[in-house]
Amino acid sequence: MTASLSKNINIVPFVSVENMMNLVLDVGIETFLRELGGFIEDDFKRWQLFDKTARVASHSTEGVIELMPTSDGDVYGFKYVNGHPQNTRNGLQTVTGFGMLSRVDNGYPVLFSEMTILTALRTAATSALAAKYLAPENADCMAIIGNGAQSEFQAMAFKALLGVNKLRLFDIDPQATEKCRQNLSDKGFEIKACKSAETAVEGAQIITTVTADKQYATILVDNMVGSGTHINAVGGDCPGKTELHHDILLRADIFVEYTPQSRIEGEIQQLAADHPVTELWQVIAGDAPGRQNRQQITLFDSVGFATEDFSALRYVRSKLQGSVFFENLDMLADPDDPRDLFGMILRADKAA
Amino acid sequence: MTASLSKNINIVPFVSVENMMNLVLDVGIETFLRELGGFIEDDFKRWQLFDKTARVASHSTEGVIELMPTSDGDVYGFKYVNGHPQNTRNGLQTVTGFGMLSRVDNGYPVLFSEMTILTALRTAATSALAAKYLAPENADCMAIIGNGAQSEFQAMAFKALLGVNKLRLFDIDPQATEKCRQNLSDKGFEIKACKSAETAVEGAQIITTVTADKQYATILVDNMVGSGTHINAVGGDCPGKTELHHDILLRADIFVEYTPQSRIEGEIQQLAADHPVTELWQVIAGDAPGRQNRQQITLFDSVGFATEDFSALRYVRSKLQGSVFFENLDMLADPDDPRDLFGMILRADKAA
Repeated sequence: MTASLSKNINIVPFVSVENMMNLVLDVGIETFLRELGGFIEDDFKRWQLFDKTARVASHSTEGVIELMPTSDGDVYGFKYVNGHPQNTRNGLQTVTGFGMLSRVDNGYPVLFSEMTILTALRTAATSALAAKYLAPENADCMAIIGNGAQSEFQAMAFKALLGVNKLRLFDIDPQATEKCRQNLSDKGFEIKACKSAETAVEGAQIITTVTADKQYATILVDNMVGSGTHINAVGGDCPGKTELHHDILLRADIFVEYTPQSRIEGEIQQLAADHPVTELWQVIAGDAPGRQNRQQITLFDSVGFATEDFSALRYVRSKLQGSVFFENLDMLADPDDPRDLFGMILRADKAA
Repeated sequence: MTASLSKNINIVPFVSVENMMNLVLDVGIETFLRELGGFIEDDFKRWQLFDKTARVASHSTEGVIELMPTSDGDVYGFKYVNGHPQNTRNGLQTVTGFGMLSRVDNGYPVLFSEMTILTALRTAATSALAAKYLAPENADCMAIIGNGAQSEFQAMAFKALLGVNKLRLFDIDPQATEKCRQNLSDKGFEIKACKSAETAVEGAQIITTVTADKQYATILVDNMVGSGTHINAVGGDCPGKTELHHDILLRADIFVEYTPQSRIEGEIQQLAADHPVTELWQVIAGDAPGRQNRQQITLFDSVGFATEDFSALRYVRSKLQGSVFFENLDMLADPDDPRDLFGMILRADKAA
């Protein structure tokens, strides 16, 4: 399983699921999340540069398939991602994905990668990055409501970027909580498995909601959220899917990724279309304040945006040179004479 | 290089450039084009079923990168394709591409394929399919103006689907014509290399224009086109890129793939926005007449549409079972428990 980045422009490095896992483990999960957070932060700082298209969605009764393209002028990237809430009943992932980077100047792909694992990592890194600017200072205790596939990634990212080391877990399914607890048992956390969401939020400066498969659920109600809390709302991410009670939204200062998309997909779909929100990049670039005092309730209404996937692919690409964590794919036809595509096929016949 | 289609849903068959060439050669180029034309024809017949989105383009000074998605309700497909006219100067393809099919019901990809070669094949098969309905009966002589990468594919498709066996070639670069002539020398054609476009069209019942890299070029002027001719205009396929003189368009009955896209990208961008055109699927489905008499000038104003790529991917997929022309890609994370993505990474660590 050795590989070297090909000098041939027609050969594209591909990071398989196995190689992504090995890359993450080789770098170290916390280091990976911290460095990935840095790439996401850098790209948020140059937000204005990006070609920001809303995702292109194909809806069906079972779910949605989306293409999320963006470009910074030098590099173009897109992610394919599906969302099928019923998939878990059949032992499948609700969300899978893959993505690609290519050169804007000639259109040739330069990276092809699995993005099921990478999306989980970038979602967590983005949440932790937002909390770096929004959570109360020295926050070390986080409640995680919803202990499914994304929960451990959130915990690890908040540890890596903020030093959170106390977790209070709750899920309507105790087996999910137990899975999460076990997976994180040797990762340096003090973990409390809780019997209710109300118990879980006690003493937590940060509340992460990351449930799935719910129509207009109310995971958090107003009296559960004390002043000074930072809410990291990850699970509500498509039309009709929200987690927070309307009243919490009215008490909180709300931060989003890309307003036009979040109005449709985020918690703020419950609010008036002109309810004031701040885009996260503004805070990171220093154009808008993050947390301003110890009483403020801050809410990161996360739905995921194309630039975060772009940053994640860019980060993975930066790790490939000299690594063994990719295969070379013969993806692009490259005849000696570009006008002689047909001749290339004829010569393949003679060579066989 | 043996492979078998995996029963694991996380494994996706990938058709590399080499495997695509070998598949085409194994099936036979003419058989491939004829069968592919059949798939395109079948999908045009069920045109109403398709989710028809205009392509999502990212423009730069050097070119364009596009995603072309579509779905028939059961299967979703998209193609990535770039268009960079300057690429040939650097020995690169103007157009490269790859594509994918996935299941609508669960969002999991089922095919990933190179599409540089496949796009050349589907473009030619679509042209020949259109000509089957539009060209004069028993047409056997075709002029090809522009003898670049697409020219031989056009010739082979018209031979396979219509029995065209006389070619009259012209290119402003005689080397391109010579390359085309040589590549087709043992394919059963009577070939005449011509010194001008005017000479090339003499006696041809079908005129294919397939030049590239021109802004509002005029490859054909009005007095070159006699009554009864079918024009297959392939080279004009983006805003600002056309090949035919305006007056020809006014004399011809015009057939397009998808009107909203062709108004922007096709030859008809030169015409008023309400100039009457017929969509090819209407002719194929029997909802509109094709050629009506021997005097009529018909024009297929081809720009390429997502359903054609969908048909091409569907055809390739139909050829894979039992073949050796693919590799299995470990593209989708598939933990035993779908909620335990993090645990899958941890277990990869222990397994290493």
